[in-house]
Amino acid sequence: MEPASASTDASAHPFDSAIALTPLGLNLWQGHTSPAYGNMVGPFGGLTAAQALQAVLLHPQRLGEPVTLTVNFAAGLTDGDFVVEARPARTNRATQHWVIEVRQQEQVVLTGTALTALRRDTWSSQSESPMPQVPRPGEVAPAQGRGLVEWVNRYDMLFIEGALPALWNGTDHGLSRTRVWLRDRPGRPLDFASLTALSDVFFPRIWRRRATRVPIGTVSLTVYFHATTAQLQTTGTGYLLGQAQAEAFHQGFFDQNAQLWNEAGELLVTTHQMVYYKE
Amino acid sequence: MEPASASTDASAHPFDSAIALTPLGLNLWQGHTSPAYGNMVGPFGGLTAAQALQAVLLHPQRLGEPVTLTVNFAAGLTDGDFVVEARPARTNRATQHWVIEVRQQEQVVLTGTALTALRRDTWSSQSESPMPQVPRPGEVAPAQGRGLVEWVNRYDMLFIEGALPALWNGTDHGLSRTRVWLRDRPGRPLDFASLTALSDVFFPRIWRRRATRVPIGTVSLTVYFHATTAQLQTTGTGYLLGQAQAEAFHQGFFDQNAQLWNEAGELLVTTHQMVYYKE
Repeated sequence: MEPASASTDASAHPFDSAIALTPLGLNLWQGHTSPAYGNMVGPFGGLTAAQALQAVLLHPQRLGEPVTLTVNFAAGLTDGDFVVEARPARTNRATQHWVIEVRQQEQVVLTGTALTALRRDTWSSQSESPMPQVPRPGEVAPAQGRGLVEWVNRYDMLFIEGALPALWNGTDHGLSRTRVWLRDRPGRPLDFASLTALSDVFFPRIWRRRATRVPIGTVSLTVYFHATTAQLQTTGTGYLLGQAQAEAFHQGFFDQNAQLWNEAGELLVTTHQMVYYKE
Repeated sequence: MEPASASTDASAHPFDSAIALTPLGLNLWQGHTSPAYGNMVGPFGGLTAAQALQAVLLHPQRLGEPVTLTVNFAAGLTDGDFVVEARPARTNRATQHWVIEVRQQEQVVLTGTALTALRRDTWSSQSESPMPQVPRPGEVAPAQGRGLVEWVNRYDMLFIEGALPALWNGTDHGLSRTRVWLRDRPGRPLDFASLTALSDVFFPRIWRRRATRVPIGTVSLTVYFHATTAQLQTTGTGYLLGQAQAEAFHQGFFDQNAQLWNEAGELLVTTHQMVYYKE
């Protein structure tokens, strides 16, 4: 009803609207799925992971910045409201451990844990995982057309290697690797929530590998944040280089390892997931 | 008091004694730290992770085999008793999600989650993560002398590359990678609990990289089990090839990626951890 507020809402970035949570009580928030980040069925898992982390980020007792996050997708979310619980299970001098649960209709749909910590200056190096030599964002053509699912349209994706197969002909390509420049569309300054969603932005490695769209679903996602708030601020609305690859596909589950570097070549995230697949 | 039982205990493998849990009630078990797996202070973290998984493995409602496990070390365990809670948060047709907590004196010392699942035969491949070409176990000299800490003596370790630095002279070696043949000492048929402990058996990557023993502590460990029970049985008491490397060391935390293959070259585990370090 308040014009200024309504106007703010209307101009809000779709990601900000999507991750908005309303406090319900101690450790509890209410959120809602967002059509802007809709998947084939229910919401994009990266958005759900970001919403889970957001409850930690909003918590008045939070100590420090996110260092690790693991979320397990226990059941597909249905479109609508959900409750997030984020509980500080242990608070130490410089680290804090969180237990997270997302529920719909009293049923658990996501379990998770996170670590936040006060960072300090130390000897640092990322020389063992340098950004690959790839064309700059301006030299790569954007993916054409609209995505098969709505959330894909919320990201600029410039595929360098390993785009969705042009032919779904079941050929084993022998390699599951994808390299792609990524950013929110429209542009939005990077933060820990959007970095979490970007960690899950890669289409299923088994589709890339086999050129076959078998049914899949991520069951567990872990994000290791190497970036500090200062680095996120200097990264701003720039592109991130994402690289993702599987190590093993075995009896119904495959893994995915991925990295996200900013344009300056700083490694912001390493992230891992285990994915269910059929056939 | 019962002679046969006492004799069984005396002949039990130290790992079996160490992971033994006593039921306390619904979802609850009591365990104890084990001097045989003692670390500098408190127990070896891999053993604690195995004890956490063991509560899931022993649970009468468990569905299927372990597929993922994440444990967060919230505080150092003190030597003595602890309570493990393993709660099935969601049970689906073929997958089951677990929430785990370890407590000492009512304080949380470990948080965790796990996924168990019924596996099924599918297209499978691990060609993107082949076992490196390395000398066979019989061709590699065992590590000499007793370990700095007790738990190290519970493992045979045949270092191929990246053993503990011979000189702690602070040289940046530029590479944090270790390759080592590993197995329980004395031999013990591999199972999911011992595979979990073996996932955490690598000494800190920052010691290897910098030849400096800075204070460290694993804060979060994730294990992806690619192995099935049948593969564990055929692996038996054979060696596993372990490979571990860091991608980023940044402001107090570094990551570690590792793989475990059996002697036949089957990838049994990919595992990741985030480690606190000082200086």
